[in-house]
Amino acid sequence: MDPNGSSFQISPVGRIVRPEGGPITVQVDAAYRAALKGLDTFSHVIVFWWAQRFDEAQYRDVLVVPLPYAGDREAGVFACRSPLRPNLIMTTVCRMVAVDEAQGAVQIENIDAFDGTPVLDLKPYFPVTDRVRDARISPDLVGWPEWMPAGGIGLMDGEA
Amino acid sequence: MDPNGSSFQISPVGRIVRPEGGPITVQVDAAYRAALKGLDTFSHVIVFWWAQRFDEAQYRDVLVVPLPYAGDREAGVFACRSPLRPNLIMTTVCRMVAVDEAQGAVQIENIDAFDGTPVLDLKPYFPVTDRVRDARISPDLVGWPEWMPAGGIGLMDGEA
Repeated sequence: MDPNGSSFQISPVGRIVRPEGGPITVQVDAAYRAALKGLDTFSHVIVFWWAQRFDEAQYRDVLVVPLPYAGDREAGVFACRSPLRPNLIMTTVCRMVAVDEAQGAVQIENIDAFDGTPVLDLKPYFPVTDRVRDARISPDLVGWPEWMPAGGIGLMDGEA
Repeated sequence: MDPNGSSFQISPVGRIVRPEGGPITVQVDAAYRAALKGLDTFSHVIVFWWAQRFDEAQYRDVLVVPLPYAGDREAGVFACRSPLRPNLIMTTVCRMVAVDEAQGAVQIENIDAFDGTPVLDLKPYFPVTDRVRDARISPDLVGWPEWMPAGGIGLMDGEA
């Protein structure tokens, strides 16, 4: 599948912890906690996670999926946010509630990932690179909010 | 480093092609081109790429870096967009110029990645999940544009 024969190894840096009814936390492993320095100066973080529940599926072969929010019309996986895709890397922009660098705990408002989901990376949300004024979207999405709603959104809550 | 002993394998789905003075293209491998179906109904795509030039460094051990744009003040790698980080996954929001599904060619306006950079994933830009109205940023970034500038931005042009 890869013309260069190369592939890369990624390892989790933490995991999602979301006890029922309790706060949602990105729990960062001890070895990586120093990397949180200064994250508390931002309001939002982009959480990169691995859609582990699909890890045993033949996910690299799934290229087109039905869109449940668009009458099951089909789209390529590079044209939607399906967790089934050649690499199971998912991102969610999350409002942060608190950052505890010493404990490795980043409390967030919402995320569309299950308890125990492996976390691969965190990046601060930068308007200069991440906020697009004039984004045009598929007709399938017209009528959706123009902004991330307060409290975030879980496209796949309970399904990720 | 990983308490579960787990790690994941990712493989490129294409690469960045940017001849000097020519158009910049995400060239998708033949096996994955069907996944582009419908991407042309969006204006912007989030390109996921691997910061390959750092692949031989001890990148997993680099947790705090100086910020060249902030008087070399230091930040954790989870609090900035340094390519040196535990997993070398980078994202760039790009305006698309053209999508040719049959040729696997997604022409984009700009990206802060070198020619030949491995591409891991493409996702359409969704305002409902990706556009944050009230993002607060680090004082180190105050004065930066509030939106992605026309033509995109290369935080690391020529350095990635």
